[in-house]
Amino acid sequence: MASAAAPDQSPRPVRFGILGCASIARKLARAMLLAPGAAVAAVGSRSEEKARLFAADNGLDAATTRLHGSYEALLDDPDVDAVYLPLPTSLHVRWATAAAVRGKHVLLEKPTALCAADLDAILAACDAAGVQFMDSTMWMHHPRTAKMRELVDGKEAIGDIKVINSVFSFRANEDFLQNDIRVKPDLDALGSLGDVGWYCIRAILWAVDYELPKTVIALRDPVKNRAGVLLACGATLYWADGKTATFNCSFLTNLTMDVTLVGTNGTLHLTDFVIPYEEKSAEFCVASKSNFAKLHTGWDPLPSKHVVTTDLPQEALMVQEFARLVQNIRDAGGNPEGKWPAITRKTQVVLDAVKASIDKGSEPIEVAS
Amino acid sequence: MASAAAPDQSPRPVRFGILGCASIARKLARAMLLAPGAAVAAVGSRSEEKARLFAADNGLDAATTRLHGSYEALLDDPDVDAVYLPLPTSLHVRWATAAAVRGKHVLLEKPTALCAADLDAILAACDAAGVQFMDSTMWMHHPRTAKMRELVDGKEAIGDIKVINSVFSFRANEDFLQNDIRVKPDLDALGSLGDVGWYCIRAILWAVDYELPKTVIALRDPVKNRAGVLLACGATLYWADGKTATFNCSFLTNLTMDVTLVGTNGTLHLTDFVIPYEEKSAEFCVASKSNFAKLHTGWDPLPSKHVVTTDLPQEALMVQEFARLVQNIRDAGGNPEGKWPAITRKTQVVLDAVKASIDKGSEPIEVAS
Repeated sequence: MASAAAPDQSPRPVRFGILGCASIARKLARAMLLAPGAAVAAVGSRSEEKARLFAADNGLDAATTRLHGSYEALLDDPDVDAVYLPLPTSLHVRWATAAAVRGKHVLLEKPTALCAADLDAILAACDAAGVQFMDSTMWMHHPRTAKMRELVDGKEAIGDIKVINSVFSFRANEDFLQNDIRVKPDLDALGSLGDVGWYCIRAILWAVDYELPKTVIALRDPVKNRAGVLLACGATLYWADGKTATFNCSFLTNLTMDVTLVGTNGTLHLTDFVIPYEEKSAEFCVASKSNFAKLHTGWDPLPSKHVVTTDLPQEALMVQEFARLVQNIRDAGGNPEGKWPAITRKTQVVLDAVKASIDKGSEPIEVAS
Repeated sequence: MASAAAPDQSPRPVRFGILGCASIARKLARAMLLAPGAAVAAVGSRSEEKARLFAADNGLDAATTRLHGSYEALLDDPDVDAVYLPLPTSLHVRWATAAAVRGKHVLLEKPTALCAADLDAILAACDAAGVQFMDSTMWMHHPRTAKMRELVDGKEAIGDIKVINSVFSFRANEDFLQNDIRVKPDLDALGSLGDVGWYCIRAILWAVDYELPKTVIALRDPVKNRAGVLLACGATLYWADGKTATFNCSFLTNLTMDVTLVGTNGTLHLTDFVIPYEEKSAEFCVASKSNFAKLHTGWDPLPSKHVVTTDLPQEALMVQEFARLVQNIRDAGGNPEGKWPAITRKTQVVLDAVKASIDKGSEPIEVAS
């Protein structure tokens, strides 16, 4: 009797194909091994040998993981439900679209595209094929993010958010600055804006529940390499109701991952928003209805620290959520979840506006919706 | 024999006159009682009764504290060495100048003046009289600030600072927004920029060892009251070498006191820079040469927390330092310390530039040195 019920309790895992063996794909391969409902079915690379090495290096089962010596071969694999696509940004529109056309669900690395028009081509292909689209912004899936969402939505602790600051930087070494795909104009032309600024923009939009800003003005003096790729830049975003947000993103300064929300009632501080300091536990600090102590000699109440634990790392939770959505489509006749592509698109639209402002010497750019 | 040496070991206290009974003066009166080398000799107010009440409320010795029913009377008191002046900003130039002319050393509340030209009149008067000038920016004197200075100057932990963010806000209540002198155009016309933005600008200048920015651009959409006084605003500061700093200052959002320094080697976070959460102990956090843990699943090394304790509150340390400088002039024939007025002036010059940019709809303003 129990065997009849088993399929419902444990739906068939989603069979992922990893398309490209970028370094970030190692983290995702581990996530697919950890995440309930997911399995690595295949790896596709420009050579079968590279795929074999990747599989061996990342603990993938040699007996069950198919190795493909081209991206096309992976996409033609009928036993792949979904692809994870960590290729350089300039290749996204081609391969994400090709995956969707073949009926594969698409988990796409960020930045999702070089511009919103390219992203729209990807989203249109996913839409036409009825497949799920999600960008690989892992911190969105950490339980800490859900806890902060609750706090922000509750309105009481933070109130109306008026000021947002975000910084994401890391100090790239000389090899990175010479050779990494993220500084190459033909591969990741958006440079630090696409690679790390993406997260700042996402965090800012997350904080305001994805209300698009009205105007974006890039900070002056962005740093570019000789090929014109951004190494450090930033922008201020303005909303019609007076909210403002400023972000800085850079390959040239120490690892920093800040989000600060300042609201009428409270202030939220987070200093490791993209990758928590530690895997199993993450914190944020909230000061709410803070007053001065007597004679202004201190604060009363003091800010409080919130700790959120998690058994699975955020990238495994992301894979699990993506797999759940795919299962709903594949096994239960459900429709793709529109929330994820909508959030991706807003991020890309703001990113486009920042890029346009940078290109025009920090002129104000109205954000198209 | 010991009695002959005593005067050198314990120089005569500096006799302070408190000129005006503003609420902030209560904190300073306490500081003068706590600080070695300082004594409250007199209180001057617009009526003797107000001065008497202030003295009684603040634990001043009725037998030794002289009460003056006018500011002039306090300034004419020959047994006052120095005045602490917490009057509304619009009165600073008149009374600080008058104090200097009478040979009184001047400890002046911030913002020190409505504009740099007014401040220059005060500084010229102090200079001509050979008296010490210092603004009452208390956090400068906390041992935490010295510890951070050491760390920043050491260059190794933080490296070259590239990005600075600062926020100072508090949520004013309705009574404040209607009646406080800080929202009145005839008393404190600089509003939130003068009252809280002052600290952000000071912190930013402190971080770059007082190198003036080249250009200042106010954030758009500052909030003003009906009389045109700023309730919330901000600006981005640009240096010739590419450093940038952004600050927000407001009467409309929760108590927030952030300074973040992002350097090539490290990142410093401080969330209570103006008034530490607690009097006896204050913290800051430093992440230095931070890398990702394996597979980018965390940070290595983790940031470290620095705790700095102090027996005396920062305002008492400020009074003690001011008294030491006054004693050096009064008792040892020394000259005024030029560092403090120079720092004040730079703060005021940047504040002027921010105000000018606000008044011109966020046009870039070149900073005059």
